[in-house]
Amino acid sequence: MPVPRPLPVTERTTIGRSPERGTRDRAAMHAILDEGLLCHVGLATEHGPVVLPTTYGRRGDELLIHGSPAATWLRAGARGTPVCVTVTHVDGLVLARSPFHHSMNYRSVVVFGVAEPVTDPAEKAAALDAIVEHVVPGRLAEVRGNRDDELAKTLVLRLPLEEASVKVRSGGPIDDEADLELLDVWAGVVPMRIAHGTPVPADDVPAGLPVPPSAATPRRPGR
Amino acid sequence: MPVPRPLPVTERTTIGRSPERGTRDRAAMHAILDEGLLCHVGLATEHGPVVLPTTYGRRGDELLIHGSPAATWLRAGARGTPVCVTVTHVDGLVLARSPFHHSMNYRSVVVFGVAEPVTDPAEKAAALDAIVEHVVPGRLAEVRGNRDDELAKTLVLRLPLEEASVKVRSGGPIDDEADLELLDVWAGVVPMRIAHGTPVPADDVPAGLPVPPSAATPRRPGR
Repeated sequence: MPVPRPLPVTERTTIGRSPERGTRDRAAMHAILDEGLLCHVGLATEHGPVVLPTTYGRRGDELLIHGSPAATWLRAGARGTPVCVTVTHVDGLVLARSPFHHSMNYRSVVVFGVAEPVTDPAEKAAALDAIVEHVVPGRLAEVRGNRDDELAKTLVLRLPLEEASVKVRSGGPIDDEADLELLDVWAGVVPMRIAHGTPVPADDVPAGLPVPPSAATPRRPGR
Repeated sequence: MPVPRPLPVTERTTIGRSPERGTRDRAAMHAILDEGLLCHVGLATEHGPVVLPTTYGRRGDELLIHGSPAATWLRAGARGTPVCVTVTHVDGLVLARSPFHHSMNYRSVVVFGVAEPVTDPAEKAAALDAIVEHVVPGRLAEVRGNRDDELAKTLVLRLPLEEASVKVRSGGPIDDEADLELLDVWAGVVPMRIAHGTPVPADDVPAGLPVPPSAATPRRPGR
């Protein structure tokens, strides 16, 4: 199998702060994206910048986002307004001996580019399936398929995962040498992760209907 | 005590999609912000929009963000480039009988505005303290204070919490009437929350030093 090209270095993917935390590895980018539920989509409007949270999916080197065709921001994206889409995981609080060196362990992907609408009906249906399976793996096998009128009521955009900046911070605090003498000050990391609770059936679900695999199994491996 | 003014209705805080999920209540906005660790800051640049994750703090009706004076995006914010800052919590996956009605329970705050640098030394020190206490409550009592050179190496911006859009989705799936006849399809909510793990001391922490309250106690009440 050919080794995938690393992510390209461009002006806007050059990391200004803490460049040692950056990676150009596509597999690392895919792993971060595949674990996330939510992205934050930013674009410039005549009223200033807007940043909105939304779900997404990934297929190969494309990020898929969707919503109502009436959503102003999504329509702007469909018209070719440049977007920036960011996915971030918080992995832990980093407690140092000084307030200054407090930090956070995180993994982030920042994608820059121009999206385009997915208009072919079969491709659109596949893209929506990919988003559902991304958020709730296994769910498609449990529900009916999309109807044509539902597809018509949905706008789907694809954004190339090409110009992207990937950053990871992990490990403990990096204290000033002198502060290491503060022997009574604890320092370290408080790990954080997303936890899934017990599924709550809707009021109108027949009593005794078992919780299906999609809801019973947390979608991501714990870290 | 006077009742606080509701958040103002402006063109960009008018919610286009699902307006019934919106609230103008400042206390609701404060609660969402106080629970969050991370915001996503968006601004327009000559290379297009940028959305970056960062920590923050809140003091009254001001959002505080900070970073290196060398960070391009932060410098742009300090110069008065309009920003949009968004904080989002994912509370659960909403599983409906159709792919179309799948959703997410969430709470989000989208703040629009122009930030300004906090330059007064005492105010700047207080703002940085507020950010540390926001992320790790109780930590300031455990560590040394900021040194002047550390303050000088930090840029702090304040953004008025005035023009903001607050949205909350909660509850179960909203299925099509006809789909309720699919009696063998489970529907409901998989709750999600942030979980804290066991604190991990840094390698150079003396053996036996107890984990302090700031690290031992999860900072936010479970939901």
